[in-house]
Amino acid sequence: MSDLLPVLRVLGALLGMFALSLSVPLAASLWAGELLWHGWVLAIAVTLGVAALLWWGLREHRRELLPRHGVLLVSLVWLVTPFFAALPLLLVMDAIGRPMSFTHAYFEAVSGLTTTGSTVLSQLDELPLSVNMWRTFMQWIGGMGILILAVAILPVLGVGGSQLFKAEAAGPVKDTKLTPRMTETAKGLWGVYVLFSLACALAFWAGGMGPPDAIMHMFATVSLGGLSPHDASFGYFSSPLLESIALVFMLAASCNFALYFVAIRKGHWQGFWRDEEVRATLATLIGGGLLVALLLWLKGLYEPLQALRLGMFHVVSVATTTGFATTDYLAWPVFAPVFMLLLSGVATSAGSTGGGIKMVRMLILLKQARREMTRTVHPRAVQPVRLGSRVVESRMVFSVLAFMLMYGATVITLSMVLLLTDLDMVTAFSVVLASVHCTGPGLGLVGPASNYAVLSDFQLWVCTLGMLLGRLEILSFMALLTPAFWRR
Amino acid sequence: MSDLLPVLRVLGALLGMFALSLSVPLAASLWAGELLWHGWVLAIAVTLGVAALLWWGLREHRRELLPRHGVLLVSLVWLVTPFFAALPLLLVMDAIGRPMSFTHAYFEAVSGLTTTGSTVLSQLDELPLSVNMWRTFMQWIGGMGILILAVAILPVLGVGGSQLFKAEAAGPVKDTKLTPRMTETAKGLWGVYVLFSLACALAFWAGGMGPPDAIMHMFATVSLGGLSPHDASFGYFSSPLLESIALVFMLAASCNFALYFVAIRKGHWQGFWRDEEVRATLATLIGGGLLVALLLWLKGLYEPLQALRLGMFHVVSVATTTGFATTDYLAWPVFAPVFMLLLSGVATSAGSTGGGIKMVRMLILLKQARREMTRTVHPRAVQPVRLGSRVVESRMVFSVLAFMLMYGATVITLSMVLLLTDLDMVTAFSVVLASVHCTGPGLGLVGPASNYAVLSDFQLWVCTLGMLLGRLEILSFMALLTPAFWRR
Ligand SMILES: [K+]
Ligand SMILES: [K+]
Repeated sequence: MSDLLPVLRVLGALLGMFALSLSVPLAASLWAGELLWHGWVLAIAVTLGVAALLWWGLREHRRELLPRHGVLLVSLVWLVTPFFAALPLLLVMDAIGRPMSFTHAYFEAVSGLTTTGSTVLSQLDELPLSVNMWRTFMQWIGGMGILILAVAILPVLGVGGSQLFKAEAAGPVKDTKLTPRMTETAKGLWGVYVLFSLACALAFWAGGMGPPDAIMHMFATVSLGGLSPHDASFGYFSSPLLESIALVFMLAASCNFALYFVAIRKGHWQGFWRDEEVRATLATLIGGGLLVALLLWLKGLYEPLQALRLGMFHVVSVATTTGFATTDYLAWPVFAPVFMLLLSGVATSAGSTGGGIKMVRMLILLKQARREMTRTVHPRAVQPVRLGSRVVESRMVFSVLAFMLMYGATVITLSMVLLLTDLDMVTAFSVVLASVHCTGPGLGLVGPASNYAVLSDFQLWVCTLGMLLGRLEILSFMALLTPAFWRR
Repeated sequence: MSDLLPVLRVLGALLGMFALSLSVPLAASLWAGELLWHGWVLAIAVTLGVAALLWWGLREHRRELLPRHGVLLVSLVWLVTPFFAALPLLLVMDAIGRPMSFTHAYFEAVSGLTTTGSTVLSQLDELPLSVNMWRTFMQWIGGMGILILAVAILPVLGVGGSQLFKAEAAGPVKDTKLTPRMTETAKGLWGVYVLFSLACALAFWAGGMGPPDAIMHMFATVSLGGLSPHDASFGYFSSPLLESIALVFMLAASCNFALYFVAIRKGHWQGFWRDEEVRATLATLIGGGLLVALLLWLKGLYEPLQALRLGMFHVVSVATTTGFATTDYLAWPVFAPVFMLLLSGVATSAGSTGGGIKMVRMLILLKQARREMTRTVHPRAVQPVRLGSRVVESRMVFSVLAFMLMYGATVITLSMVLLLTDLDMVTAFSVVLASVHCTGPGLGLVGPASNYAVLSDFQLWVCTLGMLLGRLEILSFMALLTPAFWRR
């Protein structure tokens, strides 16, 4: 056990950095002339205090981290940060006379940091700017965390075949040990993320949003989070131009950021467009959008252009696990919302800020299945599974298989637990899928026009667990539960 | 293409045998003094005629069958036999003034032969004895077909890791080619099946059923089919004794028949009780029954004993893919019916007459997943996956993986097609699961107190396809769709 103390020390360092990010809502608070700015200051002070305590208190436990430490670190970071993210919500909401329970605040924080974008709050338009800024900014921070997780940590740990995600293109990730340098390796990706963020905020501003809205919606868009500062979500703007801008950035953010980095560095985009996963992701999103648009038109709900606008925006929004809405799509033919929710399980690339199982895993499984079918007929015809120009080794396929199984088991187990609380079937299964995929809006009681406050505290904790498991790609968390982990 | 003609010739032979089975309802018709017996004679004549035409017409195409022929033969048998099974239903139901559409008759035949046990008929108690005898007897014939399929054909074709199902115990299956001798190899299993059938019918009779009821319910029990000649299903009898007898035989029939055969031949049952799959199957069924009984009691629905009686009977009935009911369990807390339907996907053994993905595949996947989790923490600790005393090779695991993926894809695709017809989500997904698992009763509109006549013709065809795909273990059918199959 004692060799896990260095992990706590690193956690302290990360908490320190996290405390600094609270200066963003503090700045918003001061800029807007809110009277409740001291809530933010107090939260910063507490977080910095705990961080310092861990960092200095454990200064004798400075050591290089091993893979098994990584498993613990990642799980701890995602469990502990939401406490400190929830703290200012508790303080500030209390100050404005709309106190939140700890369950609600922790849920909101996990929802933000995992970029799920579910909310238990209503009357969003009347919240202080600093609160909305923090709600949306949490997604942006979470997005940065996800990029390290997906590109620097999970591959090192070998979670669910994620070694593959380094792909041919991803030059920057070469370390095989967990060292503080892993932060360095993620800098290239963060560069792309920041670039996208600037471009997106400027585009929203140029498209007609005020600066605070442009910034907050940028946070929600490039992180594929979808938390909005408006009750009407993206429908607040009623603007085809702004919807198109969001559409483009959601599509862009659903691709592997490592490919952008390499393309920019090399100065050409051949590798990007040749990447099988990117092509499959974009084809699925756009093809799905056209299909739903066609359905909406054929069923006589909208004129062709309106059907295209609404179908494309909502399919891309939900399937990229963003979750913006401009209308209550649960009123559409039942095929559409179910289709969108299922797509959100597969239609983002590894190395993006999206949730779900990721397109690359789906591709590997489909190729493996096709190979098996051929072998049923021609037992001797054994071709290896390929991804791009590389042969996918058996152990990669096994990792992906194990991942899928644990993913399925998680979804079914959490849904069954919700059924035990007598929640209806549609809400139970959809709320779990929407949480584990980090999508946000579900079906039934938790559709895009509703919010998660309709759920009981216990049900919210189940969703919170679902969001965390989904974001941690399940296995890294499950590994903690194996006896082998605690043996040395 | 022309080398597939020998397949049609074997199909002719099988149809000839199938025609003889129609003598059972004919005998029931004569025994009951029904005036409509000539419908059965006509059906026998037509079936024999077609069989003779194929057998003699293709007599120059007598050849040993290869694995690829097997794929085609199996698919053809399960597509073509229901036509000839539906024919007498059309003739006889028309004669009594309750004409069936072809869609309904074919659905009923597929439901019987696949041992799914869904029905589109109502007022069952008023049907001629011969019709009910045929409906239930189809399941028993189907059960025989499934035993050959599972133990002699699928393993040779290597469908979804089914080579494993030969297991340590299954001595009788050693051929690696498809020859007429495969019929011989299945004789031992049929022996067990016939023995069980005799014991079950005698037990039902001794327990208080009249001879026709005892025979028909035996057909529905040992085949795990669950089609009943009574509108009230097994609730018609209101007898704890008969329910217990059914319970024992459903549990027994959910185990691998090859294990019984070996145990009887060797004279000891060590191999049976040591078999991991049998233990897991029985533990799942009994544990599931206790869990639901506990839930029913805790929620205050029944007294403890009544909760145990109802919980155990329905969990075993649904989870073994039988589908008998004595009460409308959709009125129970929502957890129970969903849990039972999901269990029906895994809680039967390979080499039984049950449906679903089979427990052995689940075991292999769980073990593989556990192994991967350990490897996340200890990259060098690589232990092979074992089933009993045998090491499971990688290619077996891959087969199982491909199978699971195709199974999942089938369920989702068929459900989405049903959603396109604006069927509600609960009914759509449950009806597909109940069909593909060959369970029978679903949730929503197609619960145990309802029947499949509420569905439209198109929706029934989707279910029919689901039952056939589920019973053929999907891959054997999918293989027909690959270009590789049609290349030589
Ligand atoms: K989201
Ligand atoms: K059944």
